[in-house]
Amino acid sequence: METKDLFIDMALKAWYIQLARTSELINGFTDEQWWGEIAPGRNRGIYLVGHLIAIHDAMNDILGLGQRLHPELEEAFVKNPDKTGFDMPSIELLKQYWKDVHENLSSQFQKMDADEWFKKHNAVTEELFAKEPTRNKLNVLINRTNHAAFHLGQLRLLKK
Amino acid sequence: METKDLFIDMALKAWYIQLARTSELINGFTDEQWWGEIAPGRNRGIYLVGHLIAIHDAMNDILGLGQRLHPELEEAFVKNPDKTGFDMPSIELLKQYWKDVHENLSSQFQKMDADEWFKKHNAVTEELFAKEPTRNKLNVLINRTNHAAFHLGQLRLLKK
Repeated sequence: METKDLFIDMALKAWYIQLARTSELINGFTDEQWWGEIAPGRNRGIYLVGHLIAIHDAMNDILGLGQRLHPELEEAFVKNPDKTGFDMPSIELLKQYWKDVHENLSSQFQKMDADEWFKKHNAVTEELFAKEPTRNKLNVLINRTNHAAFHLGQLRLLKK
Repeated sequence: METKDLFIDMALKAWYIQLARTSELINGFTDEQWWGEIAPGRNRGIYLVGHLIAIHDAMNDILGLGQRLHPELEEAFVKNPDKTGFDMPSIELLKQYWKDVHENLSSQFQKMDADEWFKKHNAVTEELFAKEPTRNKLNVLINRTNHAAFHLGQLRLLKK
């Protein structure tokens, strides 16, 4: 295996591990857990799951993959904190969005060749990228994986 | 920059970002936060910090870097859950261990060349590694980075 393919394989594996753990956890959530706070006064399950869906969906823009599926989630789950009264989809819809957004990303990732992952992403300028070649698409994936792990650690607290 | 070096640079950057965020957080902890539970009935700050120190220190064994500095932490912070009565060092000592363990790792990492990171780690057999070359030392670093992010998400809840 070429070194480049090996890295991509490692980074994708880490991403899919975090997603699989999160999927398993939230698929087992009761309504009480979806609506429950991870700690007194903190974010609710529904907010953190919606937040992860919206942030992952936005990778379509940053990685130049195509249109995101649910830009309407930005308002309630990214731009504003939890419990500020913005409309949220039902739990059933969010479960469906979780599935759709990740299936879409997964199919987009399969179309990317190794060189594509090492190109500049859309949230960095050409100038900065010339100086910092680590600011590539694969790095976005690595950062999003850590971000997912961060919130998975919190969502875990909803499980008894 | 060679692709191999680039990828190691990306993985190390992600590792140091998680560590810097965690250091900043715990350096600002009050005694109440160190001894507080992340959520009612859950792990305390002191336990999670000790857990991260012990798991990171154990990377010395898994990556074949040398002796770990504080094997005595295994009992209270890895082998057993929190609040089971095992001896824990003082907060002051833990802060020092946090610093020492990460400085030690950092200086060991600086001595590793690119090829070294792609060699098999010590928790996988030669046979399995031949089939799965992603089970290399760099992959341990990537997994530990996600593990740190997972617990950082929880430690954050101690901050008001």
